[in-house]
Amino acid sequence: MPMRVGIGILGGGVVGGSLARRLLGDRASISEKTGLDLELVKVAVRDIDKDRAFPRDYVTHRLEEVVDHPDVDLVVELMGGLEPARSLILRALQAGKPVVTANKELVAADGPALFDTAAAKGVSLLFEAAVGGGIPLIRPLMESLAGERLTRVLGIVNGTTNFILTAMDEGGTSYEAALAEAQRLGFAEADPTADVSGADAAAKATILAGLAFGVWVDQGQVHREGIERLDRGDLAFARQLGYVVKLVAAADRNPTGVSVRVHPTLVPRDHPLAAIRGATNAVFVEGPAIGQLLFSGPGAGGEPTATAVLGDVIDAARELLAGAQVAPRIRFNDRAVGDITSNTTRWYIRLEVADAPGVLAAIAGVFGSAGVSIASVWQEGRGDDATLILITHEGPESAHREAVKQLMALDVVKQVAATIRVLLPES
Amino acid sequence: MPMRVGIGILGGGVVGGSLARRLLGDRASISEKTGLDLELVKVAVRDIDKDRAFPRDYVTHRLEEVVDHPDVDLVVELMGGLEPARSLILRALQAGKPVVTANKELVAADGPALFDTAAAKGVSLLFEAAVGGGIPLIRPLMESLAGERLTRVLGIVNGTTNFILTAMDEGGTSYEAALAEAQRLGFAEADPTADVSGADAAAKATILAGLAFGVWVDQGQVHREGIERLDRGDLAFARQLGYVVKLVAAADRNPTGVSVRVHPTLVPRDHPLAAIRGATNAVFVEGPAIGQLLFSGPGAGGEPTATAVLGDVIDAARELLAGAQVAPRIRFNDRAVGDITSNTTRWYIRLEVADAPGVLAAIAGVFGSAGVSIASVWQEGRGDDATLILITHEGPESAHREAVKQLMALDVVKQVAATIRVLLPES
Repeated sequence: MPMRVGIGILGGGVVGGSLARRLLGDRASISEKTGLDLELVKVAVRDIDKDRAFPRDYVTHRLEEVVDHPDVDLVVELMGGLEPARSLILRALQAGKPVVTANKELVAADGPALFDTAAAKGVSLLFEAAVGGGIPLIRPLMESLAGERLTRVLGIVNGTTNFILTAMDEGGTSYEAALAEAQRLGFAEADPTADVSGADAAAKATILAGLAFGVWVDQGQVHREGIERLDRGDLAFARQLGYVVKLVAAADRNPTGVSVRVHPTLVPRDHPLAAIRGATNAVFVEGPAIGQLLFSGPGAGGEPTATAVLGDVIDAARELLAGAQVAPRIRFNDRAVGDITSNTTRWYIRLEVADAPGVLAAIAGVFGSAGVSIASVWQEGRGDDATLILITHEGPESAHREAVKQLMALDVVKQVAATIRVLLPES
Repeated sequence: MPMRVGIGILGGGVVGGSLARRLLGDRASISEKTGLDLELVKVAVRDIDKDRAFPRDYVTHRLEEVVDHPDVDLVVELMGGLEPARSLILRALQAGKPVVTANKELVAADGPALFDTAAAKGVSLLFEAAVGGGIPLIRPLMESLAGERLTRVLGIVNGTTNFILTAMDEGGTSYEAALAEAQRLGFAEADPTADVSGADAAAKATILAGLAFGVWVDQGQVHREGIERLDRGDLAFARQLGYVVKLVAAADRNPTGVSVRVHPTLVPRDHPLAAIRGATNAVFVEGPAIGQLLFSGPGAGGEPTATAVLGDVIDAARELLAGAQVAPRIRFNDRAVGDITSNTTRWYIRLEVADAPGVLAAIAGVFGSAGVSIASVWQEGRGDDATLILITHEGPESAHREAVKQLMALDVVKQVAATIRVLLPES
């Protein structure tokens, strides 16, 4: 006799629609597989007349009606954004109803407070779909790897920017053209800011870092550089030097604390991340015992994301029916947020310089006095001017910043045209 | 106030030793992270005087003493083999003690009976480390993907054979030389049969198939070919044709039921599995909604495997302390085990033939009458004899078998020297 759990969904978009269809269409097979009778009770949609994807009996435009409905035992939040999602999730948790959400923005901003409320009420708050779409990442980090002292989490967690960078790299197109193509194909939104600025990746990196290191980093403390100002010339230079440029999110511990950052990164062509094309996501989880684990798959999209949400719904329903819940799965300590200038780094630097005797010596002198060692130099002349590409050896971020500051003060340096970090093999 | 759970370990080998060291050394950090005080109580080792890796207070050579110890709340089985592991696990479950095991052989052979006992007693039986060493696979399959109708599970799940095949491919060495090297480096055991015959991979494939499709396939019903008879010449031909040979374990549904098989497989050089080198494992999980998910990492070794075991220990301890457990996580239905001859397949075939007029026509005629379409042919003459390499198009396994049977009956065919399946892009 399968055990019934009533499901309410907040948000009738792509993911909500896919989830509702699966709950209705796969009810028998889910029951056969899990012993749970998941019954869709209500879906809150923005506009009842417009959102005709759902049977009319199920839809409402009143969000509270879903949360408060007596037959709704479990709430799925798929609206996104901070409010009213936060208030509705808290309202459900306070009523003892478990919540499943895919809202990375909210979890990144308010995770610990939400987890505390869930723990206090003894109900589940699950968010597998908030990072990596259909890729199981949250559960492995929280459960399978709970006994590992992780050293680094690193990956490509935004499909829109990876699609754009893949197009720029493979097609030699400009950022603007690649963005327009991504928008035309539905891989980028009309307002692409959250993706191309790195904000979306930063929220995901915060969540991964929180689970990996027990420190929840405020979004303002994430070092964040987007892809908007990337020059296709730098992608071409990178290619000639054996690299591909990816928007990499990374978190590790430096001497001052946990450092989270998102920025364009030169990835060696033979590194597995270099092979991650288009809208695919891939995350490496590293630790002394497990070495490197790689998880990859579809990072977005209604169907894959609905699979992750449904996995959480099944898990939360199991726990709800068990009628008991242990201490919170997630505990945070007070280890500090790290200062990025304490990181070890390696940079690709493009300088526009005068093509005159002694220029290279002056530039090399700056690096030497800043304590940055140069790994390779490549010069391309064009009349009176020259382009100088340098790649440094690993060294302190602070020293790299000092070198660039001094370079800008040199007369022979017309412009520090680009600085892009290079992937380090390990933390 | 952390909640104490007493841990007993059966087996003091590489994984048991690593786990014991972590329980003793990381007790405070595990407690900080999880709120659980995991206390090592007893470790059963084979020879107390020899196994000096453990503090003497903890060790015993009496297996029952660990299971029955009043302070042991949770039993970790790391002995391997069917007996006495099975009896000890059942004894622990009957006593209401959750069990964590890495024993793929036992879980593959007796999984459903063990799960039933655990469910009847309301305690956990977890086995993340049984497949893929340190790679989280079991939990994602059972939980994150519980709502997906999976179509195929496919991967490299035996590090020993992958190490040998990588050496044969990259070094051009013979199977015997590569095996000897693997033994010298500790990647293969003195008796390598379980690995090179595909039996280890078959057990893992059975477990993955059971979780993915709800059908537990008897080991005798797994189609299994090892790597012992692989000729380095075929690896070289494969390389020239753009393939690398891997021992691939696969499970999917065919028209008659669930088909599980392990056999050498030609993998296109640009496929992600082709890049999995040495002792690394990699598994693809495929479904209509999630597309392809890839999990890869260290497939064996004491430290990675201990991480997976420790993750299970933490999860089982949480459930134990919650004092309640829901219906079994794993349910099996009565869908049939599939007949491999109903599969769709594609073969690489090497024939030793007479180098005479009309030979190719005769051979092509056989394929035609069997209903197998040829994708490419490559001939290499040597005096009176010639080697003919054929790769077929996708077609029924039964038709391929019929074609080979007829080829063997042809006078001009001296030998069907090799048949190796080719990876299909999807089920």
